[in-house]
Amino acid sequence: MRVIYNEQMADLANLLGEMAGLAGHAMERATQSLLQADLALAEQVISEQDRISIMIAEAEEKAFALLALQAPVAGDLRQVVSAIQIVGDVNRMGALALHVAKAARRRHPAHVLPEAVNGYFAEMGRIAVSMGAGAKEVLETRDPARAAQLDQDDEAMDDLHQHLFTLLMDRDWKHGVAAAVDVTLLGRYYERFADHAVEIGRRVIFLVTGVLPTEEAL
Amino acid sequence: MRVIYNEQMADLANLLGEMAGLAGHAMERATQSLLQADLALAEQVISEQDRISIMIAEAEEKAFALLALQAPVAGDLRQVVSAIQIVGDVNRMGALALHVAKAARRRHPAHVLPEAVNGYFAEMGRIAVSMGAGAKEVLETRDPARAAQLDQDDEAMDDLHQHLFTLLMDRDWKHGVAAAVDVTLLGRYYERFADHAVEIGRRVIFLVTGVLPTEEAL
Repeated sequence: MRVIYNEQMADLANLLGEMAGLAGHAMERATQSLLQADLALAEQVISEQDRISIMIAEAEEKAFALLALQAPVAGDLRQVVSAIQIVGDVNRMGALALHVAKAARRRHPAHVLPEAVNGYFAEMGRIAVSMGAGAKEVLETRDPARAAQLDQDDEAMDDLHQHLFTLLMDRDWKHGVAAAVDVTLLGRYYERFADHAVEIGRRVIFLVTGVLPTEEAL
Repeated sequence: MRVIYNEQMADLANLLGEMAGLAGHAMERATQSLLQADLALAEQVISEQDRISIMIAEAEEKAFALLALQAPVAGDLRQVVSAIQIVGDVNRMGALALHVAKAARRRHPAHVLPEAVNGYFAEMGRIAVSMGAGAKEVLETRDPARAAQLDQDDEAMDDLHQHLFTLLMDRDWKHGVAAAVDVTLLGRYYERFADHAVEIGRRVIFLVTGVLPTEEAL
């Protein structure tokens, strides 16, 4: 029973990790499509979303089967419950990458972003990709140090996001309201993507240490 | 065993319902604080967030205890898994109401919104409150007709949200970029609040019918 549980739980954790990696990869290409007004790339991200959706359903069924057939208890049970919650986070990460790709498609052949903020989004995209990879690694290795690193990445993301707002709110913003609206929403998507990666890290730390880090403590 | 399961599951469903109701109530007062630049009300919503956080942890522990001690199978198990997912949705609804209250506090004594969009937000607030109450009812009664009603409310919310964007993107927008940024984010909060209520309805329909409605089918 216990051997089967361990195998199936490792299988589920790897699937979650793979999905987090895919979400990060989707965000990478979505960012590129945004910065380069690359319609083909945006379409690719959008059409691959189905694949993530199928994996989401698969992960939920795996978690359910684990509970139903192995009836895990104590720490094992907590792992499966966390996995169910993590599916929700990974799902949102994929959806947020999709939103970015759809923004690029909606404004094509125009660029969504004024050139002045390209640097911000290139960097937010870089951090998001790193956080997707980090979430994958944490899910596969359960390394608390790597989970803590996610929080540092998130701080960098928040700083960029704050700077972006300062820029938007500045009287010297010359790019009009429509661009400001797009920048606001896109900034929010990257920030939320990072939040979900952090949440995955927090849940894994909880599994390893038994203590759920508060947002302040992280 | 089965009697205890039924009692504990009803108890958990009622707690989730209560939390959805509280999130709706928080959104109601947050909207009022937004429209009337009422700082005291905004502070009240913010300070009551702790109560929702405690209930979230309580609901997660109840679901865990149900799995650990009752080891439910089949449909019973699916109910508990759904409850775990629903906790996540209710949690976000509370957080989004909090974001609205914080926006009202941040700009106080100024109003966040230009008067021209007050009507939109009053209506989005009204729908959000109705959806919070609807989610509560669905959780307590598991009535699929009431769950379907959530989807109609969500359509009304999406329509308002679309109109709001048309207004923002219009060349005649006279209220500047800073107000546009606030309106964009606030509109997004209401829209996401509605999405989570719909998600709760979908999960309950799934429990009752065994079929997860697709977004198109709803």
